[in-house]
Amino acid sequence: MEIAVMTDVLAKNDAIAADLKKLFAEKGIFVFNLMSSPGAGKTSLLEATLEELSEKYSIAVIEGDLYTEKDAERIHRLGIPVLQINTVGGCHLDANMIREALAELDVDNLDMIIIENVGNLVCPAEFDIGEAMKVTILSVTEGEDKPMKYPLMFKESGAVIINKVDLLPYVPFDMDKAIEDIKNLNPAAPLFEVSCMKKDGLDQWTRWLSDKIEEAKRK
Amino acid sequence: MEIAVMTDVLAKNDAIAADLKKLFAEKGIFVFNLMSSPGAGKTSLLEATLEELSEKYSIAVIEGDLYTEKDAERIHRLGIPVLQINTVGGCHLDANMIREALAELDVDNLDMIIIENVGNLVCPAEFDIGEAMKVTILSVTEGEDKPMKYPLMFKESGAVIINKVDLLPYVPFDMDKAIEDIKNLNPAAPLFEVSCMKKDGLDQWTRWLSDKIEEAKRK
Repeated sequence: MEIAVMTDVLAKNDAIAADLKKLFAEKGIFVFNLMSSPGAGKTSLLEATLEELSEKYSIAVIEGDLYTEKDAERIHRLGIPVLQINTVGGCHLDANMIREALAELDVDNLDMIIIENVGNLVCPAEFDIGEAMKVTILSVTEGEDKPMKYPLMFKESGAVIINKVDLLPYVPFDMDKAIEDIKNLNPAAPLFEVSCMKKDGLDQWTRWLSDKIEEAKRK
Repeated sequence: MEIAVMTDVLAKNDAIAADLKKLFAEKGIFVFNLMSSPGAGKTSLLEATLEELSEKYSIAVIEGDLYTEKDAERIHRLGIPVLQINTVGGCHLDANMIREALAELDVDNLDMIIIENVGNLVCPAEFDIGEAMKVTILSVTEGEDKPMKYPLMFKESGAVIINKVDLLPYVPFDMDKAIEDIKNLNPAAPLFEVSCMKKDGLDQWTRWLSDKIEEAKRK
């Protein structure tokens, strides 16, 4: 019975997600779902990405958190339209939360929506929220064993970002092993090694992302 | 209906947890449930703790992970009895998993059981698994905003450990703010600032833990 209820929840979620995907495709909006452990650097990556791309493209951000509006405030300071979803203890975003948030956004005039999910390497990967692509961040301070311990999120991602490479001299992180494991789980996803704090390696990421935005506009 | 099922799941869980608590109290075993984000240092804290206490006390470890036996292998190398629970994608341990694991342990001859939960700052806090105490680790690389963003785990904890303090020179972490927020959420819990990698600050933690073990034996 518990399994039946969960299946039902996921089926309803997927139906809403499919509607959202259709809407985003029609409007030519590229939507990605940014996931990671707490504190791996989702909001920092967002800040760096917006700094680079917000002049050229019309971007909005949806922030998911259990409580607080801290992350939304950080994005708001950059002058970007941002909506905060508080899950009030819930461990992931779902498609219905995104559908409700969309009512507040001007979808006719957007090139990209970035959705920052709840900080959690497990549950968010299980819920399609209408995104064109999932992106997962692994920070080097978490250890190279995390892709194999939390494989679903890495498998499902269209790109993987390894953040905090500026801390590599101070932590025991085996980069070759991390890359090998991620490539085994997901051979197709490009991998970007960055430091959001030191603004290193971000060009390749934002160039790649620009291509995705252009692709979505053309379709 | 979803809420009713969840309430039912929690009620069943709590009944099993209550039985476990009773058993542990009868046997004089101190049990704690170690929680944190992925990569905050649960297994490293375990290794450091076992190194200090395993000669004096009879200790067993239960390792919770979605997949892999990596953490159990690390503990096994120290010669400590260790059981691996794989949740196969599940985001937390529950009381029934612990009850089943116990069949493999010699509970008549143990002073302490340490249960390392799945790396997740959200879901594990919601499930009582029969422990006498929850312990949460926050690593400084995650940022000082995490206690207010993930308050339940910090509220529920009998002790909070701030790990990776050796990285403080390299990360933007406001220790005063972190301590203030944790104290506001949970005034009673002692706070230990440690570096498991550099073996700093661990004495206070292991002394405090020894007192808890002795208390459980006396009761």
